[in-house]
Amino acid sequence: MCSRNSSSITSFFIVSLLAVLVNPTISSRAFTKEHPRVSVASNCESWRLASETNNAGSWNVVPSRCVNSVKNYINGGQFENDYNIVARYAIAYAKRINLGRDGKDAWVFDIDETLLSNLDYYKVHGYGSEPYDNAKFNEWAVQGKASSFDGSLRLYKALKKLGFTIILLTGRDENQRSITEKNLRNAGYFGWNRLILRGKNDQGKTAIQYKSEQRSKVVKEGYKIHGNTGDQWSDLQGFAVATRSFKVPNPMYYIA
Amino acid sequence: MCSRNSSSITSFFIVSLLAVLVNPTISSRAFTKEHPRVSVASNCESWRLASETNNAGSWNVVPSRCVNSVKNYINGGQFENDYNIVARYAIAYAKRINLGRDGKDAWVFDIDETLLSNLDYYKVHGYGSEPYDNAKFNEWAVQGKASSFDGSLRLYKALKKLGFTIILLTGRDENQRSITEKNLRNAGYFGWNRLILRGKNDQGKTAIQYKSEQRSKVVKEGYKIHGNTGDQWSDLQGFAVATRSFKVPNPMYYIA
Repeated sequence: MCSRNSSSITSFFIVSLLAVLVNPTISSRAFTKEHPRVSVASNCESWRLASETNNAGSWNVVPSRCVNSVKNYINGGQFENDYNIVARYAIAYAKRINLGRDGKDAWVFDIDETLLSNLDYYKVHGYGSEPYDNAKFNEWAVQGKASSFDGSLRLYKALKKLGFTIILLTGRDENQRSITEKNLRNAGYFGWNRLILRGKNDQGKTAIQYKSEQRSKVVKEGYKIHGNTGDQWSDLQGFAVATRSFKVPNPMYYIA
Repeated sequence: MCSRNSSSITSFFIVSLLAVLVNPTISSRAFTKEHPRVSVASNCESWRLASETNNAGSWNVVPSRCVNSVKNYINGGQFENDYNIVARYAIAYAKRINLGRDGKDAWVFDIDETLLSNLDYYKVHGYGSEPYDNAKFNEWAVQGKASSFDGSLRLYKALKKLGFTIILLTGRDENQRSITEKNLRNAGYFGWNRLILRGKNDQGKTAIQYKSEQRSKVVKEGYKIHGNTGDQWSDLQGFAVATRSFKVPNPMYYIA
């Protein structure tokens, strides 16, 4: 992804303006009752903040009037910058921790949209405007083509260098273990302690329940989870939570 | 606060540009090592998101290069819009709750920067760029001149109408009880169940500890805390947390 530049901003405004002018549905939905002068761009920025802070609660798809805004956010460089700054805060925090010699200082990572980017998939599936299609997504996932996020790769490598034990905890199924490992290595990630995937007993559980249970097992083994990085609040909340949680941005989907 | 308009955006960009051109300190700090082309505006947007999502952790003052960005965010209308959308999500959630007849369905509100806006104070104190001055702030607070936020007043009134028991929980000291009550009424708030202020036993406690303890007492009385609204994560986290927490934006200060 490139950095934000003036031409992308200009084209975003042109696209937004055209969308409002040519589409009466978008036009009428773009302004709230309370504040008739609030623009689509401003409302979509507020929606994205509400989602990132978990104020919006559960949502299914990106609101139709905000798809262009999400697309521009991702392709215009702000998404990448937001991501990098989270990684920088996480590295700064990790550097301040005094690690023991027992290898029990742990950091948990989610995988999809945290270590691996499925943006190439979502780009051809409406940037989160289409409801999640499990079959289609799995077709993509088993190709093992997802790339890393620069920020997460930098954080991952910094943590390895500092001596943290890395635990990967994903909502992917156990039957995707080998392709997931291969994809992670191809993207530049090495030396994790374990990769936890959804087994038979985890089917049907919410992400927050399944992930809390798995972290709890890790804690019972004597690990201290100093940090946890995920793109969903369900990666970070529940029980057996980390000392510090780092929410990387994801404006495209929500998992309860 | 007025809605965002093109003249305020233009003047923001001019101010930002001038700041970069005339101040070598700001200029050098404005670009990160990793991404030399990332603008001040983009970095400050990322900082604000990192703060709102609690990724930034504890911070003392608004970074000097972001003061103009914060000022523009607040005066340009985006702050107000972000605030209103949080209130709208909270109202939508509250309306879906089936209330009992025992009056035990509660909603907790913080006061400063949640129900009452001290923006008139912060406007003359650098929009969060000056370290917190307890004596000066109290001089302002005892005047009882703080105004309401439109979004919070709307949420408060909606909750009262729905039949929620309103509990106010503030970090202000017990000796400010009467001026705080007067200020709240002048700002349009009526009919709270109780106002909890820091007593003698609460001195020296972190906000997260003090507020968790007070919520815990409320829960022990048989109340169910359905919602909690605050501008700080320390209003919302800890123990005895609400079913849903609503973090209203505050780019000016952080309380642990």
